[in-house]
Amino acid sequence: METYLDNNATTKVDKNVLEKMIPYLNEFYSNPSSMYNPARKTALAIEQARSQVAELLGVSNPKTIIFTSCATESANTAIKGVVSHNKTKENNHIITTQVEHPCVLSVYEDLEKKGYSASYIGVDENGDLNIDSLLKKVTSKTILVSVMHANNETGTVYPVEKIAQEVKKINKNVKFFVDGVQAAGKIPIELDNTDIDFYSISGHKFHAPKGIGALYVKKGALFDPFILGGHQENSLRAGTQNTAFIVGLGEAAIIAKNTLEFENKEVRRLRDKLESGLLDRIKNAKLNSKSKNRVPNTTNIGFEYIEGELILLYLNDLGIYASSGSACTSGSLDPSHVLRAQKVPFTSLHGSIRFSLSKYTKEEEIDYALSEIPKVIEKLAKISPFQDELKKLGM
Amino acid sequence: METYLDNNATTKVDKNVLEKMIPYLNEFYSNPSSMYNPARKTALAIEQARSQVAELLGVSNPKTIIFTSCATESANTAIKGVVSHNKTKENNHIITTQVEHPCVLSVYEDLEKKGYSASYIGVDENGDLNIDSLLKKVTSKTILVSVMHANNETGTVYPVEKIAQEVKKINKNVKFFVDGVQAAGKIPIELDNTDIDFYSISGHKFHAPKGIGALYVKKGALFDPFILGGHQENSLRAGTQNTAFIVGLGEAAIIAKNTLEFENKEVRRLRDKLESGLLDRIKNAKLNSKSKNRVPNTTNIGFEYIEGELILLYLNDLGIYASSGSACTSGSLDPSHVLRAQKVPFTSLHGSIRFSLSKYTKEEEIDYALSEIPKVIEKLAKISPFQDELKKLGM
Repeated sequence: METYLDNNATTKVDKNVLEKMIPYLNEFYSNPSSMYNPARKTALAIEQARSQVAELLGVSNPKTIIFTSCATESANTAIKGVVSHNKTKENNHIITTQVEHPCVLSVYEDLEKKGYSASYIGVDENGDLNIDSLLKKVTSKTILVSVMHANNETGTVYPVEKIAQEVKKINKNVKFFVDGVQAAGKIPIELDNTDIDFYSISGHKFHAPKGIGALYVKKGALFDPFILGGHQENSLRAGTQNTAFIVGLGEAAIIAKNTLEFENKEVRRLRDKLESGLLDRIKNAKLNSKSKNRVPNTTNIGFEYIEGELILLYLNDLGIYASSGSACTSGSLDPSHVLRAQKVPFTSLHGSIRFSLSKYTKEEEIDYALSEIPKVIEKLAKISPFQDELKKLGM
Repeated sequence: METYLDNNATTKVDKNVLEKMIPYLNEFYSNPSSMYNPARKTALAIEQARSQVAELLGVSNPKTIIFTSCATESANTAIKGVVSHNKTKENNHIITTQVEHPCVLSVYEDLEKKGYSASYIGVDENGDLNIDSLLKKVTSKTILVSVMHANNETGTVYPVEKIAQEVKKINKNVKFFVDGVQAAGKIPIELDNTDIDFYSISGHKFHAPKGIGALYVKKGALFDPFILGGHQENSLRAGTQNTAFIVGLGEAAIIAKNTLEFENKEVRRLRDKLESGLLDRIKNAKLNSKSKNRVPNTTNIGFEYIEGELILLYLNDLGIYASSGSACTSGSLDPSHVLRAQKVPFTSLHGSIRFSLSKYTKEEEIDYALSEIPKVIEKLAKISPFQDELKKLGM
């Protein structure tokens, strides 16, 4: 049975989203920047989608939403834009966490090469952020703090609203960026009345297509635009707008908002069933997603003394699709930087698998996974070079 | 009759392109970076599209093609990437033309603010580039030259292959960027064996959707990547790939290559019919697209002593859609920087309209335009404040 448990990598497009987009890939093809009647229709569709995304994010002013091509672009826009806007050479300090997505970490590493001083805050063994450590790092020289809302590999949720508030108490000039990619559509978000300046989302993580994202920019949060050219998106992001996918993102946002309860009951129930089922049935299984604050769809489990890539290969043959690390780092054989940050021991670090569900995950898929995965682990345990250690675990 | 004469702003998606994309917005939704079987299928589809785009551009090595979200991103990537890669402070000179699209001019203006010295080369009254002036500007300090292949407002084609060759004779270290947005699908392109280092295209200008573009990067042409994050696109452009639109771009590229002959015969015939018909019928009509080297689908005509925005408004009421300037600068009341560069007199500068056709333009549309536009101009001539001047023209 095809069992897709990699929804943090990408999700299936919702049929209703696809249906809303098709007319904009067909008869309503005008450039939304043009002045004639059919173009005004597409421009209006974009503004409607902007309101829909604002609604998902709990934002009363839709003008704070900028459409981008993906959340990676959104993160690049926010981080590079804040840093570029800062003209004071002495203020060269930026803070983030050790567990961010590559779209944040890569930009930070690049900025370090360009002379910025970066602090990377660690997490504890449960994956929770050391907030006191973060706050201690904030000085008058700090210009930007980036903290993700939910971790893509473990599902851990970070209290970004609270952190933003505390950071601003120390230095009100700091800009606060949140990578919200894995939170949007999974947990409620209310950006109005927070101290968050920038918040990025990715359509394809909540049933819109790949190739569309957005960036919330708090009113008054100044940054230098990233992609320069035409006057689109209120002159904050140049390039002809992807009308069809913007319309799709808007529809997906509304659906996601309405599905939050289902996500937090039914998707959570299936995730919990999968998680406890695997931990019960498999003796060398250890939970990596140990935080109390988690998105409802994700679990990360380490299978001690077994190679994760082999597990994925065997699961693939059975039609079960999961991942080790993020899709954005796949192909790399380095163990996950997220799990290393939370000091997962090397015995299970290399055999850690992320399972991520969605509203489309069926009970039969979970049952199938629960029946097949233990057999795969048992097979692989037999060829593991760590026979003594596995025996101690009763395998 | 709905008569769409604004194909340089955007084109209708080809039905075959849409058909090829739909499965990737539906069942084939895997993240192409994932490792399991269905993801490999999407990754392969991307590689096929890369070969198809390479074929359109006359490039033998598909690895030189990077997919982006739009040509504006492609231009930003090439220009900022070359400049950022240059570590020699003394080499701070960049050259472009006065008639580039805003996606090039905006980046140049931004670089000037950052301390770069920019030369903007003019055009003659026909719209042709002053190539000798350009070559005279190239020095040992020059790091980048950007020349568009075809102008979006007038359709003028610039001999970019020859200019690149001459530039490299003077300074072989100069990188040469070509904005090919208005050339791709309209005239043949053979980038292999040219000295062009970077070439950008936009899907929605040749019947792929809005939201997908590409950048050709000659092997060995070094630049700093623009969007940082995951390892996608050979680590040259981060962000989950827009599989569906990439597949669409590939299909559109093949169709465009196969339609080149039609474009150069039938589209040209209709464009010429429209152009000569308007010039014959309307006494204050003056051709702005005067170069001998033109793409076959575009004409730009100035109607003396009449306001262009009014013409467009009246045409809109008749269902005839055209534009003044580019969609990317629309909303601005400044007269076209392209027409100013070729010294179009103020008498027709403000009344200049671009008509751009495509393979979907029908003879009836041209006939309708030829029957209606002269009446519109006549009406507007009657309310023009320049009655004496119009009388001299016999109106």
